[in-house]
Amino acid sequence: MNKTVSNRLSLAQFSREILNGNTVVLAQAITLIESTRPDDIVVANELVEKLLPHSGKSIRIGITGVPGVGKSTFIESFGKLLTAQSKKIAVLAVDPSSSKTKGSILGDKTRMDELSKDPYAFIRPTSTGTTLGGVADRTREAIILCEAAGFEIIIIETVGVGQSETVVRNLVDFFLLLMLAGAGDELQGIKKGIMEMADGVVITKADGENVSKANQAMADYQHALHLFLESDSGWKPKVITSSAVENQGIHETWQLIKDYVSFAQSNNYFKKNREQQNLIWFHDTLQHLLRNKLNQSKEIKLKIKSFEKAIIDNAVLPSRAAQEIIQEFFGA
Amino acid sequence: MNKTVSNRLSLAQFSREILNGNTVVLAQAITLIESTRPDDIVVANELVEKLLPHSGKSIRIGITGVPGVGKSTFIESFGKLLTAQSKKIAVLAVDPSSSKTKGSILGDKTRMDELSKDPYAFIRPTSTGTTLGGVADRTREAIILCEAAGFEIIIIETVGVGQSETVVRNLVDFFLLLMLAGAGDELQGIKKGIMEMADGVVITKADGENVSKANQAMADYQHALHLFLESDSGWKPKVITSSAVENQGIHETWQLIKDYVSFAQSNNYFKKNREQQNLIWFHDTLQHLLRNKLNQSKEIKLKIKSFEKAIIDNAVLPSRAAQEIIQEFFGA
Repeated sequence: MNKTVSNRLSLAQFSREILNGNTVVLAQAITLIESTRPDDIVVANELVEKLLPHSGKSIRIGITGVPGVGKSTFIESFGKLLTAQSKKIAVLAVDPSSSKTKGSILGDKTRMDELSKDPYAFIRPTSTGTTLGGVADRTREAIILCEAAGFEIIIIETVGVGQSETVVRNLVDFFLLLMLAGAGDELQGIKKGIMEMADGVVITKADGENVSKANQAMADYQHALHLFLESDSGWKPKVITSSAVENQGIHETWQLIKDYVSFAQSNNYFKKNREQQNLIWFHDTLQHLLRNKLNQSKEIKLKIKSFEKAIIDNAVLPSRAAQEIIQEFFGA
Repeated sequence: MNKTVSNRLSLAQFSREILNGNTVVLAQAITLIESTRPDDIVVANELVEKLLPHSGKSIRIGITGVPGVGKSTFIESFGKLLTAQSKKIAVLAVDPSSSKTKGSILGDKTRMDELSKDPYAFIRPTSTGTTLGGVADRTREAIILCEAAGFEIIIIETVGVGQSETVVRNLVDFFLLLMLAGAGDELQGIKKGIMEMADGVVITKADGENVSKANQAMADYQHALHLFLESDSGWKPKVITSSAVENQGIHETWQLIKDYVSFAQSNNYFKKNREQQNLIWFHDTLQHLLRNKLNQSKEIKLKIKSFEKAIIDNAVLPSRAAQEIIQEFFGA
């Protein structure tokens, strides 16, 4: 049905309705972005470009954590806090992984039940694209559309399984990591490096008998984070505990993010980081498209495969193999 | 002088002398690898390919730490321990950064004074190449030559300033991070993520009044590392203290590395990791060469620059800019 609509609405109509904050059309536009039909792609590109000047005014927040950490519950409470202040919030659920984990983000019909009914909130999965790069592009474009539609806070939600975080880190201003207390960190499956990307860590489910464990975890992580060199922003990540059911730590999280934003704006990192992210977007896409060109040649693709085998057998020098691929491709 | 020799020696002579462990010729061959003269590059490529089957039998150890941490002193003590066991050890100093930091690795004439005179030791800077990728390639090839020359332990030394570690990480079996106690970790300039790459951490200069601070640091880092998910190898990084002047912790470091090697060999990660590293070498070089092709076109280069400016001004969609570059380059 979206397809039909996307074909019925003109570029100008799409643009006008989105700028008017029409979330039905916004949803259709995001579907258009995700479409793989050549004619859709053309319109989608033009639409995103047309709305680009109206984008950039939101706070982009990445939220990650392994399944079971309570992401949905946290985001629901967090979102309600913001909509109660008449702030427009969009939640884009990114999931580049298999339909299996996709279920963990999108399957549960009851997730963010209240928020999804909130007129100030817009919730949308954007888990498309076969490659992380593809997912990132779609999400970047969805962010632009949401910002053009007047959303002031955009949450990019992803499952903390180690593959999508680095991608999401490059899409957002503030990266929030949700962790469980106690369980033993290995069990949480937080991959190395992810904690170091965090601007803030929230220990969830800090209620009932969990409170003491949560406080211990807070101390542990704060200490661990303290051991690392400060990030490029100069910001020192903070750890707080939260209980969504007791609605505790939610306001503190928002305060932490506001503190970060004013900090990063005052030292001009906020702007610099966004510029850097756009340059990364540009160069990543360049690499991606170059690589696609290679793979479009069936011969080259086969040759790469056979070289990979030879390389594993230590039968050919990897750099030499690469040179031969390039020479064959460019007919040198 | 090396050039002349490299022109005088035939490929067969180079190969035979290196296989005979002739370190003079080995040094000349590494110079040949680093040469930018087209005819040298051809011979160098053939030589490395010829010796490839004779490579791979060493333990490759990456050692990093900020200037002042005592790398040279540590490596000298560590190297002497190994040569005393009649083990042949090669030290390749990687420094992709400016001549300024290069000085910190290569300038000091007195560094590794004893080791450099040791018949079982071979010390060689390989800091060439304008790009990290270039440096990595030269180093990978130098490793192959050293292994063909019969060196059993190869140390890749780099300055812990955050740029070269990730590259070196992909060249070695075991990554050792040297840190100073006390000073305050921020002051050590250890970039985020580097500690998480380490298979082992050595707190240096643990002597005199530093001992208690060193022990405290050891406890702190061991605890911090414990918070992270185990690495792909399944190995849990260990932290030890060391005093090169009191020759303490040197033997323990070697034991730690031997423990790692038998651990990684028993679960087959050692082999898998090397295969993975060669595939990364292959694909990195592919990307690198593809990108070179782009930059060889003056028009494309200028267009990329102007797009970068427009992107920073939020005047063009990064993905669209990339598409235009590709279309122009391939004349689509």
